[in-house]
Formats: sequence, C-alpha cells, structure tokens
Amino acid sequence: MGTLAGISETSPLAPQAPADLPAVGGVRLSVAETGTKYRGRPDLLMAAFDEGTTVAGVLTRSKAPSAPVDWCRKHLAQGCARALVVNAGNANAFTGKAGDRTVREVAAAVAKRLGCRQREVFPASTGVIGEPLESGPINAALKAMTATLTPGAWEPAARAIMTTDTFPKLATATARIDGVPVTINGIAKGSGMIAPDMATMLGFVFTDAGLPANVLQDLLTSSVERSFNATTVDGDTSTSDTVLAFATGAAATSKVKSAGDPKLKGFVRAFDKVCLDLAHQVVRDGEGAQKFISIEIAGAEDDAAARRIGLAVANSPLVKTAIAGEDANWGRIVMAVGKSGEAANRDRLAISIGGVQVAAKGAIDPGYDEKTLVPHMKGREIDIKVHVGVGRGKATVWTCDLTHGYITINADYRS
Amino acid sequence: MGTLAGISETSPLAPQAPADLPAVGGVRLSVAETGTKYRGRPDLLMAAFDEGTTVAGVLTRSKAPSAPVDWCRKHLAQGCARALVVNAGNANAFTGKAGDRTVREVAAAVAKRLGCRQREVFPASTGVIGEPLESGPINAALKAMTATLTPGAWEPAARAIMTTDTFPKLATATARIDGVPVTINGIAKGSGMIAPDMATMLGFVFTDAGLPANVLQDLLTSSVERSFNATTVDGDTSTSDTVLAFATGAAATSKVKSAGDPKLKGFVRAFDKVCLDLAHQVVRDGEGAQKFISIEIAGAEDDAAARRIGLAVANSPLVKTAIAGEDANWGRIVMAVGKSGEAANRDRLAISIGGVQVAAKGAIDPGYDEKTLVPHMKGREIDIKVHVGVGRGKATVWTCDLTHGYITINADYRS
Repeated sequence: MGTLAGISETSPLAPQAPADLPAVGGVRLSVAETGTKYRGRPDLLMAAFDEGTTVAGVLTRSKAPSAPVDWCRKHLAQGCARALVVNAGNANAFTGKAGDRTVREVAAAVAKRLGCRQREVFPASTGVIGEPLESGPINAALKAMTATLTPGAWEPAARAIMTTDTFPKLATATARIDGVPVTINGIAKGSGMIAPDMATMLGFVFTDAGLPANVLQDLLTSSVERSFNATTVDGDTSTSDTVLAFATGAAATSKVKSAGDPKLKGFVRAFDKVCLDLAHQVVRDGEGAQKFISIEIAGAEDDAAARRIGLAVANSPLVKTAIAGEDANWGRIVMAVGKSGEAANRDRLAISIGGVQVAAKGAIDPGYDEKTLVPHMKGREIDIKVHVGVGRGKATVWTCDLTHGYITINADYRS
Repeated sequence: MGTLAGISETSPLAPQAPADLPAVGGVRLSVAETGTKYRGRPDLLMAAFDEGTTVAGVLTRSKAPSAPVDWCRKHLAQGCARALVVNAGNANAFTGKAGDRTVREVAAAVAKRLGCRQREVFPASTGVIGEPLESGPINAALKAMTATLTPGAWEPAARAIMTTDTFPKLATATARIDGVPVTINGIAKGSGMIAPDMATMLGFVFTDAGLPANVLQDLLTSSVERSFNATTVDGDTSTSDTVLAFATGAAATSKVKSAGDPKLKGFVRAFDKVCLDLAHQVVRDGEGAQKFISIEIAGAEDDAAARRIGLAVANSPLVKTAIAGEDANWGRIVMAVGKSGEAANRDRLAISIGGVQVAAKGAIDPGYDEKTLVPHMKGREIDIKVHVGVGRGKATVWTCDLTHGYITINADYRS
C-alpha cells in the first residue's frame, strides 16, 4: 500500500471517523514494527487475554490454507486462548514446512512471555503469499510488546493489521446479559481477495462476556454467515481468511449453556451488529471501490438459494462495472441471476433499483424512465432488489463496484 | 463499440489477418443493415442451407435465456435446418412475450422467403438485454438479403454479428471422410460476458459433410467442452450463448451412424480445430485483453476437477490483474487453486510459468529467480502449468488478462 500515487487515499466509502472503542475487561493490546515488509509503521499486533478466556473461529475453506490457519484449525477445539498475534505484510502461506516452523516458534516465544501454553496462542498473517516469514524479527519484538500491553489501544491495533486497507476498521457495541453490562469490540482488515468463505481476510471480535467456547462458536458461526459470508469484493478467497472471537469472562456474567439461551438475545444482536459493521467496512474499503452496493434477493427457493443468487449478482464483473459507470444496466442483473444456476422464473422476475421498479413480469416496466434513476446511480450507496418469483427464500448481500482503481492496485501490488 | 476513444482499436492479440474461408457447399450467406442499434454497418446475417441440412446446438445454461435461445432449444430436436438469422445490437433477452413474438415473426418471414418450415429457421441475437426487438426492420431487409445470398461472403458474415468485438472471427479446416474432401468453416462473436457454459456468445460452424443430426450433436457437444467451454474472459454467462453446427451433406460423403465411427477421425480433428480456433479468438478479443493466457492443470483427481481448478485460476481477478501488471505473482495462483474447492495437495503443489519452475513441494523453488521470467511476462502469450499432486486428471483452459480496458468498456458500454 501507499506505493501508488493516489491509491492509498482513504476510500470515499469509509466511515467519517474510526469508531472509538472502550476497553474490554481481560483484553490488553500492543503493537510493534518488525520491518517485515512495511517501513515506518507497526505491522505486528499482540492481544493478551486473562486466564479463562474462550475462543471460537471461522476459517477459510481454501484447500491451500496458510500455516497460521492450519494452526488455528488444530487448536480451536480446545477452546482456550491467552494470546492473539497478527502480522501484516506476509501471509505465511504456501511456505511449506518452514512456514509451520515459524508459527511454532512464534507461539513458543509468546507462550514463554505470557506464561501460557503454546496452543493458547492464536496466530494470523496477512500479505504476500509464498514468501518465507522469519520468526526472528517477530520474536525480537515480543519483549517490548509484552511490557507495553494496554487495554485501550484499539485504533493502533486495527492499523497494525492493515495491508492494502485505506482505513482502520473498528466496531463496538454493548449489551446486557441478565442485567450485567458487557462490551463487544471488533477489528478487521481486508480490501481485496475478499469473497465469502471468508469474506474478510482477518476479523477479530473481543468481549468481556463469559461464554463457553461451544456457545461462542455457535454465535460466531451464525453471525459470520449473515455478515462476512454475505459480502464480496472480487470473488477471490484468501488462503488466510480468519475470524476469531474471544470471550474473557471479565464481566462476570451469569452462566449460559447454549447460544439459544434467552438471556443472550440482546448480546446476540450486539454481536451480529459488530460483525456486520466490520464486514461492511471491508466492502467499503474494497480495492478501488467508489460505491457500496446492497443486493436484496427475495422469492427464491430458499434462503441459501437467495444468497447464491445475490452473490452471483455481487460477483458479476459486468454488474459491478455498470454500477461504476453509474449505469442502471438492469439487463446485466438479469444475466447474473440467470447464471447463478438457481431456480428463477424469468416471466415473474422483478427488479427495482433505488426504490424504482425497473422490470417486472419478465420485461421492462412500462412506467420506468431511466432518468429518474440518475441521482441514485450517481450516489455512493446503490440498492438493488430482485424478486425471482419462485418461492419465499430471501437474503441480502453486499459488494462494491469494480473500477480502474482495482486494476491499478492489483496489477502492481507486489512490485 | 467504437464510441470510446481508443477502445475500438483491434486487440493486440488478434490474428494478423482474418482467415480466408472457402465456400461450403450448400451454404449461402448475405448481410444487411437494419439500424437497430448500429449505424453504417451491417448488423444482420442470414445463412441459407440446402435441403437436407442437419443441425446441432449447445445453448447457454442461463436460467434466464433469451427468446432466440428458447426457440433453438425447442426446435433443435427435429434436427433439420434451412436458415440461420443473426442480429447484432439487441439480444432479445428478458423481453417477455413480445420477444417470443419477434422470433416467431422473423422465422415466419424467413420461412416464407426460402420456402421452408418456420421450425427450420434458427435465430440468434446478441447485444443489449431488456430492450424490445422489433421484427419490422429485420423482416423488411429479408427480400434484398434473399436476393443477394452468395456462397463466399464469410468475412462480411463474421463482421455483421460483431458487437464489442474488435475483429471478425473466422476459422476453417479441411478433412476427408472415406476419401471425400470436406470443408468446415466457422464464425464467432464475443468479447465480454464470456464464461464456460457457454464461453462465447455466438459461434456457428458449417460443413458440407453429410452427418445425421444426432452424430453432429455428439461431435459438437464434445468439441465445445474442450474449446468454448474451456475458455473464459470474465466469468459472466450470457443469456444468449449459442453454438450451432450445420452439416449440408453437399459433399456427398458416405453414411456414418455414430460420432465414434473411425471414418470420422480426421473430420473430428478438423472440427475440433475450428471450434478451438474460434474459442481462442474470442479470448484474444476479451474486452481490454493485452495477454492470452494458457493454464494447464495436471495431477487433479480427474479431468473435470482439473478443468474446474483451471477455471478458478482463469476467473480469478487477482491472477488476471497480476498478469496485466506483468507480475509473475504465483502466490495468487496458489490462492486460486485453493479456492476452487477441488482436492489439491498443498505440499506437492508445483507451478511453472513460461517453462520456468517457480514452486514445488508446497514452497517457492530454491533455484527460482524472478528475473528469468521478466521476458515471458512482458510477452503477449503467458503459459501457466500447475500440478496439484493428487491424481492423473488434466485439462487446459484459456483466458486473458484483466486490464483498465475492461473497466473502460464495461463502465460505459450502454450509455
């Protein structure tokens, strides 16, 4: 990032200012510069958790996952976490046995510093694929990082994990569990190689609620499905996509045994809100993005079919370039619905854009005048609704437009 | 096309000159201007076939197919063709019952002119989706077109069906069936909304061989699988994708009963060659394409898995933009293999580019020096080979790079 003129400017779709996050009991943070790829900025984040912290995760479905993803997959089952270590600039992916060794060495060094077990250390890496990542510079930074762990450093944490991101991504919400107030904070990074499963390269959610690991996992899985996994920038799935959630229990909330516990209702809503906020921020920072696009599908066979149709529209380069050109080219939406492979009744298909009905009953709406849509198409937020006329399934997905900026960033990222 | 400065220039990947096609016995062609969308150029093609001509077709799998596709699907089964009518500029897709009526009216008018049945007239349309197509201007042109049908007008025919294409696409080959020489000619159009199933919007193949419709269908289905369906420009599937093959029997070849007949060996090879040549030309005219990319996958579970892996690589915006940037970013190839969902052994994965081994055994090749690849990456033809280390399945797919040109063309195509 930052090497191309004009490209590192903040996305026009960014929030006006990063969210201001309160401390979360049981979580302390610090950042450092290792110089792995970037100069003059922190590129390493360590989060330390109090004893008793539980962890849950959703990991990339890539068949060529990174070494940190392999490690997380192996150790999530035991459910306890004492640390998160994230480096930016090198993904430690496709790095063979040396990559696994680096993860082990970092986990060992962190465990030694914090007095915990290696398997309680969760690593994540983001950046270039296929270049060896050395543990040396990371481990050399740990001593000072451990000494400077502090509860409030959320924005520096979010900044330390950025790669091509143009703004740090933070979200927060509060809730009560049985009357006890709890906080949920989240940070994320990602702006390209973004597709469902997972839709962000890295996302981390932290709460002081006390939750068994299995409950936290159920909450996270369901929340990710409606947030990170319902967004796409370019349809590319990273080797490193990781969302982890940590629950410290510092708020001393009453015990819950399942994600369906009525006591958790407000908490689930707040947790979902944080995940969706982060996922939207990733889309809003989509490489080269100039417009944020919501696609609401209704009338599909079921919700899963609706989501697949939505993603077919959201991943269509022709739909995305039309929107970049501020062209309400609904014919390309028809094409994308058609290519999804899901059932759709062409003769009952209806499309509206920006609240204006443009097509119904398999043809252009007789009352539709393209001019009425010009102000909407020129705006930053584009709303598309499609009814495919088959059943009751529905879903909403989010994406951004496909612009010259995407090409510029990605034709030159590594060099 | 032609409305954007610099965009209508011929693709740098085009053949030096259009192929020079001989006449095919039993096939006569003519073109006309209807002014439907384009001005000052023919936009309508009619091909008339002698009695006894058989037809086969492979049509888009889109769930929202165009009216002409619906018509072709309905009438291919009877296997006889007397005419092909193709218009450029309007796809007659998502045009409701009016679209079906236009197809019927044109078929009726052509049938009347040629003295054949309506169901022996095969229509195809390409262009904007969702705008009504009137039969009037087309039918008004038919009288003069019928009067000017001629055996040799292949290049004008290929030009008449162009939309955003920057060059006409023609291919030819000869073969012998039982000693009797036969000719196979093909024309195609397409440069965007190109993805497997089908990988070209429109392709037409004509031969004077005498082949039962079911044999022609078997030949075409198998040939399309290895040609049009093994290419991709942007992963978008059109509502109108159509490949039709016509066999007039004018060469009086001896009877064959199956596509596996040993007599057809040379013919099949020539037929495949024409389809592959046309499919490659479509990729070479990919919107904004600067580089032609071959992706050879080996070591997959089976050939179908290899093809899906190849297409995952070929459709990855990150791979395509890296190649546009002349960057041998093999890490993105790893990512794309991983996202295909097909089995791959990360620790046995090997990648070579331009004949140079860059990665093996799950990591960068120790002997690999990026500089050796610079001349290859600067060239027009990029060769990628991936061994995924699982089985014996293999496939080759073709695509082009993703450049600023694609964005410029598609952000402004309709306006």
